[in-house]
Amino acid sequence: MKGRYFTEQERQILEEIIRHRRTELGENFLSQEIPETVLNRLIWAALSAPSVGFSQPWEFVIIRDASIKEKIKACFEIENEKAKKIFNDKPLYNQFKLEGIQTTPINIAIFYKPSSSPVLGQTSMKKAGPYSVCLAVQNLWLMARAENIGVCWLSILDEQKVKRILNAPDENELIAYLCIGYVKEFTERPQLEIANWETRKSQESLIYYDSYHQDSNS
Amino acid sequence: MKGRYFTEQERQILEEIIRHRRTELGENFLSQEIPETVLNRLIWAALSAPSVGFSQPWEFVIIRDASIKEKIKACFEIENEKAKKIFNDKPLYNQFKLEGIQTTPINIAIFYKPSSSPVLGQTSMKKAGPYSVCLAVQNLWLMARAENIGVCWLSILDEQKVKRILNAPDENELIAYLCIGYVKEFTERPQLEIANWETRKSQESLIYYDSYHQDSNS
Repeated sequence: MKGRYFTEQERQILEEIIRHRRTELGENFLSQEIPETVLNRLIWAALSAPSVGFSQPWEFVIIRDASIKEKIKACFEIENEKAKKIFNDKPLYNQFKLEGIQTTPINIAIFYKPSSSPVLGQTSMKKAGPYSVCLAVQNLWLMARAENIGVCWLSILDEQKVKRILNAPDENELIAYLCIGYVKEFTERPQLEIANWETRKSQESLIYYDSYHQDSNS
Repeated sequence: MKGRYFTEQERQILEEIIRHRRTELGENFLSQEIPETVLNRLIWAALSAPSVGFSQPWEFVIIRDASIKEKIKACFEIENEKAKKIFNDKPLYNQFKLEGIQTTPINIAIFYKPSSSPVLGQTSMKKAGPYSVCLAVQNLWLMARAENIGVCWLSILDEQKVKRILNAPDENELIAYLCIGYVKEFTERPQLEIANWETRKSQESLIYYDSYHQDSNS
């Protein structure tokens, strides 16, 4: 094989990073600043993700401004009130602090920008565009973990309102809104698993071979 | 900070893996089998991705059966003929072998399975569900690279036809169809960049601060 060969020891380090990556809830964040060189490495990781037809259909808005954060927080509060009604049979919901907008030094809004011309690989499945942007998010997330920095993907937001707050072009789609900061602790297991909100699914229940069979557990 | 601390040396290994990860075009694949233990590590990486509300809304169909692959290949051929018409002003398109369905030992179709009950974090942005599945794809892709295994994300497919071929439940959405195998070479740069199909965008053109400004390059 030509090209960079990775050893088993190197593979195990990736495994460790993947294993210890967490979704942070808001109260775990520290206000400590993220150095510019570190932020640049997170962005570099995102920009190094695969994308359909090498179209790189992503744009990033790095948010530190308190007044912008305040508007996003207000947007979250409205959406979270709606969510509380949906989960009114589960009082545990109210105990989670599901955002870190103002408790993290940096928020990053990540957008999909559609191409004005046809994109190789996107002619049959349009959604390969926005999906490419998600791959960039995961690269950034893993790099953050390797920097010992926590990430919260905040999706309890009204996309159209966020676009207006950030003055985003009409054609752009909001893919992810991330709150990023150092944390007090990386827990051994996901925080929603520890809280017994959800349990981990077994691998066997999620894997099929060759096709979904009629007698499968689907 | 409590929890696993990653060193700068460990971070650099992740950087290397991200830097050398490629999207493979079909002619680069080798037929060599992927050991079961290696495949299990790829699946483990996918299942360790973050997901909205820890919902783990993913299902995987691991395909080795030649007759299934033949049907998927036929589906690709039809969609690729349509694509060739779209790119008829770019003869370069015809030179790419954009799939590795039969030249790889393993294909994996990855689906989003919607939850039958409300999911924490998904009440305002429904698409956080399918986006979670993309994060699993990227975890798998990086682990494959660390195993010195190549991945081709094949999106030149008709989703409904693929679902019928695989007998997928109606409510499932096809997120990604991956062709996975050892390769002759990991190139230094993306193959579509080397071929001058697309150029790499500059970081400055993709980053905004606090909001999109009226005088920005958007």
